[in-house]
Amino acid sequence: MCLFEANTTLVMAGDSVTDAGRARPVAENRKEDLGKGYPALVDALLSACRPDLQMRIINAGVSGNTSSHLLERWDEDVLSFHPDYVSCMIGINDIWRQFDNPHLYHRHVDFNTFLKNYEKLISCTVPKVKAMLVISCCYMEPNRDEPFRAMVDQYNAGAQKLCDKYGAIYVDAMAAFDKGMEFYHPCFYTWDHVHPQLGGHMVIAKSFLKTAGISLDN
Amino acid sequence: MCLFEANTTLVMAGDSVTDAGRARPVAENRKEDLGKGYPALVDALLSACRPDLQMRIINAGVSGNTSSHLLERWDEDVLSFHPDYVSCMIGINDIWRQFDNPHLYHRHVDFNTFLKNYEKLISCTVPKVKAMLVISCCYMEPNRDEPFRAMVDQYNAGAQKLCDKYGAIYVDAMAAFDKGMEFYHPCFYTWDHVHPQLGGHMVIAKSFLKTAGISLDN
Amino acid sequence: MCLFEANTTLVMAGDSVTDAGRARPVAENRKEDLGKGYPALVDALLSACRPDLQMRIINAGVSGNTSSHLLERWDEDVLSFHPDYVSCMIGINDIWRQFDNPHLYHRHVDFNTFLKNYEKLISCTVPKVKAMLVISCCYMEPNRDEPFRAMVDQYNAGAQKLCDKYGAIYVDAMAAFDKGMEFYHPCFYTWDHVHPQLGGHMVIAKSFLKTAGISLDN
Amino acid sequence: MCLFEANTTLVMAGDSVTDAGRARPVAENRKEDLGKGYPALVDALLSACRPDLQMRIINAGVSGNTSSHLLERWDEDVLSFHPDYVSCMIGINDIWRQFDNPHLYHRHVDFNTFLKNYEKLISCTVPKVKAMLVISCCYMEPNRDEPFRAMVDQYNAGAQKLCDKYGAIYVDAMAAFDKGMEFYHPCFYTWDHVHPQLGGHMVIAKSFLKTAGISLDN
Amino acid sequence: MCLFEANTTLVMAGDSVTDAGRARPVAENRKEDLGKGYPALVDALLSACRPDLQMRIINAGVSGNTSSHLLERWDEDVLSFHPDYVSCMIGINDIWRQFDNPHLYHRHVDFNTFLKNYEKLISCTVPKVKAMLVISCCYMEPNRDEPFRAMVDQYNAGAQKLCDKYGAIYVDAMAAFDKGMEFYHPCFYTWDHVHPQLGGHMVIAKSFLKTAGISLDN
Amino acid sequence: MCLFEANTTLVMAGDSVTDAGRARPVAENRKEDLGKGYPALVDALLSACRPDLQMRIINAGVSGNTSSHLLERWDEDVLSFHPDYVSCMIGINDIWRQFDNPHLYHRHVDFNTFLKNYEKLISCTVPKVKAMLVISCCYMEPNRDEPFRAMVDQYNAGAQKLCDKYGAIYVDAMAAFDKGMEFYHPCFYTWDHVHPQLGGHMVIAKSFLKTAGISLDN
Amino acid sequence: MCLFEANTTLVMAGDSVTDAGRARPVAENRKEDLGKGYPALVDALLSACRPDLQMRIINAGVSGNTSSHLLERWDEDVLSFHPDYVSCMIGINDIWRQFDNPHLYHRHVDFNTFLKNYEKLISCTVPKVKAMLVISCCYMEPNRDEPFRAMVDQYNAGAQKLCDKYGAIYVDAMAAFDKGMEFYHPCFYTWDHVHPQLGGHMVIAKSFLKTAGISLDN
Amino acid sequence: MCLFEANTTLVMAGDSVTDAGRARPVAENRKEDLGKGYPALVDALLSACRPDLQMRIINAGVSGNTSSHLLERWDEDVLSFHPDYVSCMIGINDIWRQFDNPHLYHRHVDFNTFLKNYEKLISCTVPKVKAMLVISCCYMEPNRDEPFRAMVDQYNAGAQKLCDKYGAIYVDAMAAFDKGMEFYHPCFYTWDHVHPQLGGHMVIAKSFLKTAGISLDN
Repeated sequence: MCLFEANTTLVMAGDSVTDAGRARPVAENRKEDLGKGYPALVDALLSACRPDLQMRIINAGVSGNTSSHLLERWDEDVLSFHPDYVSCMIGINDIWRQFDNPHLYHRHVDFNTFLKNYEKLISCTVPKVKAMLVISCCYMEPNRDEPFRAMVDQYNAGAQKLCDKYGAIYVDAMAAFDKGMEFYHPCFYTWDHVHPQLGGHMVIAKSFLKTAGISLDN
Repeated sequence: MCLFEANTTLVMAGDSVTDAGRARPVAENRKEDLGKGYPALVDALLSACRPDLQMRIINAGVSGNTSSHLLERWDEDVLSFHPDYVSCMIGINDIWRQFDNPHLYHRHVDFNTFLKNYEKLISCTVPKVKAMLVISCCYMEPNRDEPFRAMVDQYNAGAQKLCDKYGAIYVDAMAAFDKGMEFYHPCFYTWDHVHPQLGGHMVIAKSFLKTAGISLDN
Repeated sequence: MCLFEANTTLVMAGDSVTDAGRARPVAENRKEDLGKGYPALVDALLSACRPDLQMRIINAGVSGNTSSHLLERWDEDVLSFHPDYVSCMIGINDIWRQFDNPHLYHRHVDFNTFLKNYEKLISCTVPKVKAMLVISCCYMEPNRDEPFRAMVDQYNAGAQKLCDKYGAIYVDAMAAFDKGMEFYHPCFYTWDHVHPQLGGHMVIAKSFLKTAGISLDN
Repeated sequence: MCLFEANTTLVMAGDSVTDAGRARPVAENRKEDLGKGYPALVDALLSACRPDLQMRIINAGVSGNTSSHLLERWDEDVLSFHPDYVSCMIGINDIWRQFDNPHLYHRHVDFNTFLKNYEKLISCTVPKVKAMLVISCCYMEPNRDEPFRAMVDQYNAGAQKLCDKYGAIYVDAMAAFDKGMEFYHPCFYTWDHVHPQLGGHMVIAKSFLKTAGISLDN
Repeated sequence: MCLFEANTTLVMAGDSVTDAGRARPVAENRKEDLGKGYPALVDALLSACRPDLQMRIINAGVSGNTSSHLLERWDEDVLSFHPDYVSCMIGINDIWRQFDNPHLYHRHVDFNTFLKNYEKLISCTVPKVKAMLVISCCYMEPNRDEPFRAMVDQYNAGAQKLCDKYGAIYVDAMAAFDKGMEFYHPCFYTWDHVHPQLGGHMVIAKSFLKTAGISLDN
Repeated sequence: MCLFEANTTLVMAGDSVTDAGRARPVAENRKEDLGKGYPALVDALLSACRPDLQMRIINAGVSGNTSSHLLERWDEDVLSFHPDYVSCMIGINDIWRQFDNPHLYHRHVDFNTFLKNYEKLISCTVPKVKAMLVISCCYMEPNRDEPFRAMVDQYNAGAQKLCDKYGAIYVDAMAAFDKGMEFYHPCFYTWDHVHPQLGGHMVIAKSFLKTAGISLDN
Repeated sequence: MCLFEANTTLVMAGDSVTDAGRARPVAENRKEDLGKGYPALVDALLSACRPDLQMRIINAGVSGNTSSHLLERWDEDVLSFHPDYVSCMIGINDIWRQFDNPHLYHRHVDFNTFLKNYEKLISCTVPKVKAMLVISCCYMEPNRDEPFRAMVDQYNAGAQKLCDKYGAIYVDAMAAFDKGMEFYHPCFYTWDHVHPQLGGHMVIAKSFLKTAGISLDN
Repeated sequence: MCLFEANTTLVMAGDSVTDAGRARPVAENRKEDLGKGYPALVDALLSACRPDLQMRIINAGVSGNTSSHLLERWDEDVLSFHPDYVSCMIGINDIWRQFDNPHLYHRHVDFNTFLKNYEKLISCTVPKVKAMLVISCCYMEPNRDEPFRAMVDQYNAGAQKLCDKYGAIYVDAMAAFDKGMEFYHPCFYTWDHVHPQLGGHMVIAKSFLKTAGISLDN
């Protein structure tokens, strides 16, 4: 079942994984504007596999964003476009700063704050759109006991519960990577566990479209 | 039926549509080396949908190449890698110079020369590889009477016959664009009828993988 | 009959075809300031063929402009110079966005809005100048049934009627290209049907000066 | 009477005035390759006014060349293209170095050497082409007693006699500038008396085409 | 008799000849800040020949300035430094625009306006400084009947009269160039009659210091 | 008594102090080619004060050169120009490396090697020119007991003896700086004791011309 | 005895020696932000030798600062971070301008003003932090009679007295350099006596940590 | 016991961790030439803590090198300097390509080849130097079961055995990082497990000098 109706608008929000070099101030559907990440691939796959949908994609990622940053700019950067669909992939920077800059407390976003932020984002958005899709954070490390990965799993589980509570759709991109990491070492997909090369972005795009019920074999 | 076996090498040869900013001198499978065109997308789709295949992709496109140029460098740039599979997308520049520089005769490659060139490429390659895939030239113009498009159709038909004669596989990317152009004007996919934006490269990549029997819904 | 009197000022307004890399903020008659398009060629032809006219040319083109954008800046960028003559070449972006970004409705300017915009421009300008010249939009495609070209013809016809109504002079540059396209494919003049190379800008400049009664064989 | 036949090649040789930023190594008829000088304007005017001629223009100017430099590279850079027509505008650097670097004797080319050089160029070329056109050097200074201008007049007169002797066609661009300088000070056309702005290049292009019998009012 | 006392400040105002690439916003006596023109040479000659004077030089030239522009910024850019000495070399742009852009009337400064401007500059400055030095405009053209040179002579004569009237010191740099042009053609000193190469700046610097009574043979 | 005759050539050889950003491969008398150091100032002072001499100056400095490097390229870079006069300022790098890289023995040139090198340069040059001028190394440090300065004094004294022996002219630029350093701290003239700012280059140029008997008060 | 407690913040203020290319606006503990000077080395040595301390370092140096500049921005750039420890290395520019620009009086900071400035900095900071460390200015010149060095010694002695008066800790980096200069000439450590190369910055970092009681042999 | 004697030369060979942006072709002891990695820090620490040693350091790292590459250039890049001491840190790229490009077999160096390569390097070098130091590869991952880390441990153990066999000195930098990773997550030291930030390079430098018996508390 295809989630998307024709002639609709999808805003994809997030951090540097979403941003991926997009144009400023607004990255509308001119392909070169969408950056080099999964939003550009989602757009390209849609126009190749489902040209009938004629969807408009807007990339609203901003590098370095935590869930706190995203909350602040949500109205202006996401809702002001009156989107039909919204996706959101946030949280990796909430966690990352706790590991690479352990003493910069003001740049950490702990689990509870993350949950509060995300709850606000989801609860205010779901009523205004046809569907909201929450993409899991992805940390390319197959060992679930590794501390960074463990915290990512914790945050993702929290986000998934909020989806259930408010009727958002959870896209488990992390699970898609786990499957890929049965065949490849993490450094095949990323150099720093976080920023994917094109093949990694394709994993996210494919996971997103599959969850949305889009067949790529059309 | 999937054409590709695991742990094999695919060399993708062509002109600027294939090149698409690839690394020099050799563009091996480090994703950032493969450029921004359909070879990078084929690689990304394979690693996302079929990580088990673990294929190595080499981009051997060179901007500005006609079939005459490609013939000269075929041994060094393609066969020297002992590829298991070879793809080739060539001919648009053979035609283009006849229209945009009608009086530079020495840069034109007429239909007969194109056929001779391609016959040499195919006949010498097919015996050395598991499979050779010939991708049609693509000129994004739905009107088949338009003179440039008409000549592209003529050249493609000639290439397809050579495939039948020598047992190469013909990838009809032009047909995939024709389907897309039922929904979109050519300027959605390209600014000059020839060089696709990412969505257009995805059309080629998808057409290529479909012909090779790879399901993207895996 | 030469339209222009000596020691007068001509402001040439438009979009990227007019802009062509002109200087900012004001592109006055220092030749290097006028950009690489038809306004620079008009200036060069005038100083070569009619040095006695000693005309001052101002390039007021802005890349990306639709007729709606131009209307907003008309007072400041055109009328504030108290020109003796004004030329205007606008509308191609009104149309283009409908084809290359079909779902970005807010960047489309439909036929009726285009007519309203142009009527305001012409009606407010004609009374203030010795002559206003309206240059047709140019889409280098000889097939009048092609959808983009068909819409260009529609918009041009609308502009021409407004000229008749208000006493502006219509410069049919599109017709000049149609004549050239009897000999050359569109890709000889442009790479994207819209932005001419120098030879295409010369077609516009020559068409403009001919309509203005300037002989280049002086 | 039009000098040029259809489907022919014209090579335009010279120094920096001809070069004007042309592409390397060969500046063929792709418009962007021809530089920003009179050869690009000749090409643009021909394709706008006489598209039926379908001429191929090659810019063979090299900045800094004296007649001695040009003689050395004539075979490779001019005759090797088997042109139908050749134009040549050379000599200003022969003279200039005598004024701005009066003690660098090895970079001066005196009148007799200039004549010998030009005689070789003309006498070896005329028999091989349909027509050879010799464009006068241009020094934008109306005062014929000024020492630099006086020497330019001397060199031009020498070149013109050689044209008469060997049947080449003399293009008196200097005379065209003299006419323009009745209306404009030299600094309107050039900043250094030698390198024209676009308006000055148009004076040369127009003078060249007029001598060749091309009407621009077509 | 040396005009300058030790431990004093000299502000040198003017247009691009004075500016010569100076630092912004204030070009004080750090040698690299003073640009590549005569102010830097005056500073260098003073520190080499008269290190005992320990003078502070400020370059207050601004490229493109006419006497009208200079008058507007005189208080802020010159007097606000409470200089002991002020030099001023202005007027060439007042004249130049009349020749290279004859129809841009609003950028011309005619003789009377020039005189009024200069009278204000001199009359308000002389009472506040130990000495004001007015440097003649320089147009490197030995023929005094040439129209541009003739106008330069007219403006300089007007400036010299104002010096006599108000007790400013006139530095006749034009006369120094006239002497040099007995040996060299103008294009030895400048490429455009106005902007000197280093040798030309040295002529101005030497003329300035000689008038100020500084011996360079110290 | 002026050392230089009219219409002669002077080659100025040395290290980075002489080089000062000169053009490559040959820095002839076009002013912009001579760099930003004392050779350009010597040229500028000569053309301003003695235009009658019409001298040609060639800058043959190469950054980083020791006397050993200079000896190797002397024939090609200096004598091959058949100069009438040669100047040479070398040795500071022979010394500098001993202090800033004390353990890179292969880049040190000790006193005896320096003397042998210089003796070869002087003895082979003096017979071939009207005059050879040896400019002292300059290390801007007034304290003669400072180890670097002490070694500079030793090397200079050795060079001066060689001048006496072979009839070369010694230019004591170091002494000129010593006089200036009575008024200024070394960091006024240089930031590293070696590379002068413009004022320091003027000290060298003035010292050179004074020794050559050129009056700057002409 | 180690001065620093774990999980604390150290702000290091100063001029260009401290700045050393740090990030703007705030240079926190991401290593690449701290510049190339001693603050980055202090951070690196701490994380290598005492990872248990987990200290946060902020570089608050600004190139060109005198003690007067630093006083103005102290509250915003230093105290606003609520640091546990503050270091300050200032004064070299107070002195330098007196030697390299002796007549720019308004950019000099004399000894009394320096003392007043520093007294304000120290007296207002000591009560708010666990410890304040005052690093001596460093001028790499072993001769204490040299005028610049003598003035540096004077300023340092003044700063040291203020430390005694207010309970700040004096870090005698100058003494560490004096020891090094028994083995190396100043130009080994710096090219201008002031800005150290990496080896010189290590001298400061080591001196700082030694004074703070950190053993590097851990 | 200090391993190093005074006035000796140490060549540090390796891959990108050693290279770290060093100068080409030879990176001698001018501090700016040594790059931004541990060789520059070793040099800086030595000149700060043991200036009496006056050691010359040469950085011979080349980015991307495997042990096979290093073997090829060992004679020219290392032994040709006749070093007293040699360090070598190699192998990480031998392993890395097996994980991030698993199908580029020709770029993998397996364990046996690595051992053979390293045995040749060590056995030919030890007899020619006072001491050879073999630095362990470092992969910043504390989990020894992680596949990449496990392979690093295997390679390092092999290298250590070769040290024992031939009398080279093993520097266990990996162990130093393991200690640091008790306090910090790997992403504190590196973004990709391999290339350290400055703090990580300091860990290597400190480990190296400690093994060599240099006290940093001097």
